Amino acid sequence: MNDVVILGVGMTKCGKFVDRSLHDMAKIAVTGALEESGISQAHVQAAYCGNLLSPWGFHAEHIFNFTGVIGQALLSPLGFGAIPVHNTRNACGTAGAAFQLAYMDIAAGFHDCVLVLSVEKGYLPDRDQYLRMMSPPPEEGSDKRSFSAPLEQQASRCRDYMRKYGLTREQIAWVSSKNHMNASLNPLAQYQKPYSVEDVLADKPVIDPFTRCMCAPNGDGGAAAILCSAGFARKYTSHPLFVATSAMQTGRERFDPEQPNLDERVAKEALHRAGVDPGDIGVLEVSDATPWTEITAYWAVGLCAKEDAPAFIDSRATALAGRHPVNTSGGMESRGEPFGATGMLQIAEVVWQMRGRCGARQVAGPPKIGFTQIVGGWLGWEAEDAVCSASVFKR
Amino acid sequence: MNDVVILGVGMTKCGKFVDRSLHDMAKIAVTGALEESGISQAHVQAAYCGNLLSPWGFHAEHIFNFTGVIGQALLSPLGFGAIPVHNTRNACGTAGAAFQLAYMDIAAGFHDCVLVLSVEKGYLPDRDQYLRMMSPPPEEGSDKRSFSAPLEQQASRCRDYMRKYGLTREQIAWVSSKNHMNASLNPLAQYQKPYSVEDVLADKPVIDPFTRCMCAPNGDGGAAAILCSAGFARKYTSHPLFVATSAMQTGRERFDPEQPNLDERVAKEALHRAGVDPGDIGVLEVSDATPWTEITAYWAVGLCAKEDAPAFIDSRATALAGRHPVNTSGGMESRGEPFGATGMLQIAEVVWQMRGRCGARQVAGPPKIGFTQIVGGWLGWEAEDAVCSASVFKR
Repeated sequence: MNDVVILGVGMTKCGKFVDRSLHDMAKIAVTGALEESGISQAHVQAAYCGNLLSPWGFHAEHIFNFTGVIGQALLSPLGFGAIPVHNTRNACGTAGAAFQLAYMDIAAGFHDCVLVLSVEKGYLPDRDQYLRMMSPPPEEGSDKRSFSAPLEQQASRCRDYMRKYGLTREQIAWVSSKNHMNASLNPLAQYQKPYSVEDVLADKPVIDPFTRCMCAPNGDGGAAAILCSAGFARKYTSHPLFVATSAMQTGRERFDPEQPNLDERVAKEALHRAGVDPGDIGVLEVSDATPWTEITAYWAVGLCAKEDAPAFIDSRATALAGRHPVNTSGGMESRGEPFGATGMLQIAEVVWQMRGRCGARQVAGPPKIGFTQIVGGWLGWEAEDAVCSASVFKR
Repeated sequence: MNDVVILGVGMTKCGKFVDRSLHDMAKIAVTGALEESGISQAHVQAAYCGNLLSPWGFHAEHIFNFTGVIGQALLSPLGFGAIPVHNTRNACGTAGAAFQLAYMDIAAGFHDCVLVLSVEKGYLPDRDQYLRMMSPPPEEGSDKRSFSAPLEQQASRCRDYMRKYGLTREQIAWVSSKNHMNASLNPLAQYQKPYSVEDVLADKPVIDPFTRCMCAPNGDGGAAAILCSAGFARKYTSHPLFVATSAMQTGRERFDPEQPNLDERVAKEALHRAGVDPGDIGVLEVSDATPWTEITAYWAVGLCAKEDAPAFIDSRATALAGRHPVNTSGGMESRGEPFGATGMLQIAEVVWQMRGRCGARQVAGPPKIGFTQIVGGWLGWEAEDAVCSASVFKR
């Protein structure tokens, strides 16, 4: 396998941009990534484009052009030529999957320089339409109809853990408060209002134990990255940032709280392949559709033992000033979660942290080792998430 | 790059199967590919799944489960485990793109054995809904609203060529008649009725110069393949069939009839990489949404010069008994065109021809070199197709 360098990234602000098109957002993300990389469109030999929602009734005015060739439709007007463009989808893990394909392309030596783009219009003004699309069909012979099945599933699994391991509402709220505080320092975040633990707990209840500001909002946004070979990178940087590995797995049809779950299996695989000890990770972006998924990542990645998550939260290790800062961008809860773009937003943050470019929210070091993890998809009420991918970055 | 072997393929019958689900079709295709390969689910280390239409309003009852994780949703119930599953879309080039990713995976040595699955429900009983979905939005400030934009575009470019190079309606109809004749010998084809040249010309006019039976029908179907390393293949076959290469490109925003077009550029790249002379290709499956796209492939692949296509048709070289049999399956016109699955249906046919398993439509040899090519997508009225991929197979 060849060494893989991430040369530059670009991203849009996250938010609800009724008047901003996928074209607009792609241009911002791609232009930013090219500029940071110091290269032009002509250097890019292939592209991997992630988008989840555009062909799915969202913004259906574009349905024909975007159906299945969204990457070509977005990149051709930006001056990219007759290159291979792969369009990927993998629920909320879409951008992670696109990144993994690009990583494999460069690692294998197929190309010297590729683009990853993930962009999403996730905001629908019609809330009823939105909720219909976000919910699975009711189970056969059942009246059960969820307003957000993944949220209900997370809440239920979180409550089970709380009962068994003594995790408190205040500890969960601290994770959310930390992320909102980080987002208040991130000019690209969707929500930049800081919330104290008390503010988080006092927000509108959604589903026990989560309040509104603990739940990732829908929204729009995108990010892009240039990946290249070490040889190519030498012409453009004397401080290459390496993608040590990228791993991905499908979830099992049965979630078993007593076994290592999808996120743990994938994190272990990624860290093993990268030869990285969890204790050495200096910055992490992980799924936090709610703080519960961030908390599960604490032991999945190996920052603490499963039973020690409450004490680990109390140690403040995952705060900006802690030993393992997590979701320094604000995470999905406040930076935003434009579904198919989220994994690339995480990667942009980790790259910028490792390069010391994060301004007021910059963590110490800058960190030498970064980690991103994204989960997504729905295989049923009793199943694990459908997909998880994780990547490891090294300076 | 490692050698890549295609160990076995499986496919469904093509047709309009109102009562057959994507799950049903995936099971038929995957089970067939595993059986032909002599392996079980447990050997498969990764999967690449192509599907175009399911999240796009077609069969919306499945919209949640299938959105973005269709591969996982189809493969988990079939006993595939915690493997990486990538879901790809690339308009009518979807299956070709999925195959290319799988090829790259094995060529790079990431895995020893991967599955490619492409499956589609392309038939909608509501014809109005179908046509709305198949047409681009009208151009800004124009009343132009096409019933099938790609068909109009092909017809217009075909008429231009007819005027310039003297291609006749009868010659075009012969290509279609040949394909329907081939399909009449293919028990998996959607339409198995033979049409003479006179029958083709006498069929219902659609758009000059095409009659109904010259236009690919909508329909359902799917195919799967097992790709593996040469080392893995040695345990299961003493007659490995190699994927010599797979190439893919994006179309340009301006179609120029005087320049080499997308299909020609991609075919040349694939043949060059595979070290294959067009004259040595013994079986081909190429896009024939209409006979016009098959005719363009004749010179794109290099079977004849561009100006010689009419004479080349008259030579009957592309018939079953000819030197370069094309679309022995019946092609899109009669075997069927379940959009995102078509590229894999082509590959199944070429593999079976090269293994001498095609019964009444078996070509002589069996051929030592096979070629598949699929085009698709829409970048505008003046543009080339959005995507083209081509693969070369060698015994």
